[in-house]
Amino acid sequence: MGQDRVRIGVVAPASRLEQTTADSVLQLAEALYPARPPELYFSPQCFLSSGHFAGDDETRAHAFLEVANDERFDALWFARGGYGSCRLAERLLPELTETARRKAYLGYSDAGFLLAGMYKAGFTRLAHGPMPADIGRPGGDAAVRRALSFLVEGAADALEATVSPNKPTAAFNITVLSHLIGTMLEPDLTGHIVMLEEVAEAMYRIDRALFQITSHAAMRGVAGIMLGRCSAIPANQPDFQQTEEDVARYWCRRSHIPYLGRADIGHDTDNKIVPFGRWSARG
Amino acid sequence: MGQDRVRIGVVAPASRLEQTTADSVLQLAEALYPARPPELYFSPQCFLSSGHFAGDDETRAHAFLEVANDERFDALWFARGGYGSCRLAERLLPELTETARRKAYLGYSDAGFLLAGMYKAGFTRLAHGPMPADIGRPGGDAAVRRALSFLVEGAADALEATVSPNKPTAAFNITVLSHLIGTMLEPDLTGHIVMLEEVAEAMYRIDRALFQITSHAAMRGVAGIMLGRCSAIPANQPDFQQTEEDVARYWCRRSHIPYLGRADIGHDTDNKIVPFGRWSARG
Repeated sequence: MGQDRVRIGVVAPASRLEQTTADSVLQLAEALYPARPPELYFSPQCFLSSGHFAGDDETRAHAFLEVANDERFDALWFARGGYGSCRLAERLLPELTETARRKAYLGYSDAGFLLAGMYKAGFTRLAHGPMPADIGRPGGDAAVRRALSFLVEGAADALEATVSPNKPTAAFNITVLSHLIGTMLEPDLTGHIVMLEEVAEAMYRIDRALFQITSHAAMRGVAGIMLGRCSAIPANQPDFQQTEEDVARYWCRRSHIPYLGRADIGHDTDNKIVPFGRWSARG
Repeated sequence: MGQDRVRIGVVAPASRLEQTTADSVLQLAEALYPARPPELYFSPQCFLSSGHFAGDDETRAHAFLEVANDERFDALWFARGGYGSCRLAERLLPELTETARRKAYLGYSDAGFLLAGMYKAGFTRLAHGPMPADIGRPGGDAAVRRALSFLVEGAADALEATVSPNKPTAAFNITVLSHLIGTMLEPDLTGHIVMLEEVAEAMYRIDRALFQITSHAAMRGVAGIMLGRCSAIPANQPDFQQTEEDVARYWCRRSHIPYLGRADIGHDTDNKIVPFGRWSARG
């Protein structure tokens, strides 16, 4: 392999990936970069199955460390969300090496548990954005193309439009952020613009999670909250009579956290990339 | 009203109650205590409706304070769960008076948000147990009878069998406890036996909430966790391959919290009463 090919390792610390999904991503990558395609390595762990997970905890942690601590990889790309990353955190984080710190990491949804823990540990190249599994959405090529343009070219237009080198950002799934409060994974988001998105949660659950997030003393020091898309919200019984933006505004007002409007992120193909911390272009 | 009649005020800080449910509870109370029925006052607020809630936040908070701070009431009984108590906490707790501290409080599920906040504030007569709405379950009279025997007679046989004056206890719905971590409602459960129950949550959600609970440094000082019933668990996709007890044992082992077996609590008619703190019989 020539050193000028970007090498990306894909692992699945949560739910398993279908082989056909990986194949589609590989084909797209070759089509996008015919002269010099990135080298995409899908860890065989991605395709394992152990109940809810892509292999048992030890297997998933091992695969993650194998890619993260391998200097031949420039980036670790989370294969997909689902559920399960939090199970690896306490075992995995202490074993990440200096090599792991130099790598870029991209994922969202359940991956937020590990991204949070790594951000807390001082990792500087973490980002919230599309994953290989997004290719399965209608029009999903666009999401994967965006992710690759970020990982391969560092393309600035892959970023959420309000991201700037002047202010630190972070992005999370609402449920994931609420469930990492109080754990060893909780990062210090003081001064950050925090972008939040959700999928397939009833309004009362969104409300409850935002209660927790905005009631947490450490969160009241954020620079502000932006609300990404909340999609596929199941019907509330009875009708909640408030939208996700009503609810976000309500909790921000109650907690004196500035509400800064909508963010261009979500469980969809338009999901833009949000770095953790201060973004700076890399050559 | 003679002073020897126990006066119980019912309020609904979360979801609304049906009038017919209140009527059934009133009839049962008269049948159980023909000579001297407790005086059961259902606040009109119980039957209001505002979207998801039994009246808007201000109305629910006001009704709660009206009963809690009224010395004529011996007890405040949460009408039902659902969702919404957490919305009142920051507004309500600072306005509870010394009179409120002398009262008994009984409820579970979503009521756990306020019970937690009151326990943190030093209230000594809080208990996790059946609510008026439980009369709607098949055989639900038994649950309401148990609640009344506790509130009216202080009946010791209403208590969960392992409850003892020798060790502090607390009980929570798993999801509710996970969502109050890091908020102003989170009580210090150091040295407590913590009983946890769940209803209608998928196994991956139970697992995720237990991750948060057992990963929280403050929770690692509990005397142990007992697992109540986890009922109506929706099918997990894919099959989780672990039961709720497998998962509870797993997280307890990982966090070095003693797992102390099953507790006789749950979203059902057998739901026994668990005091917050050290239980002592009252005359």
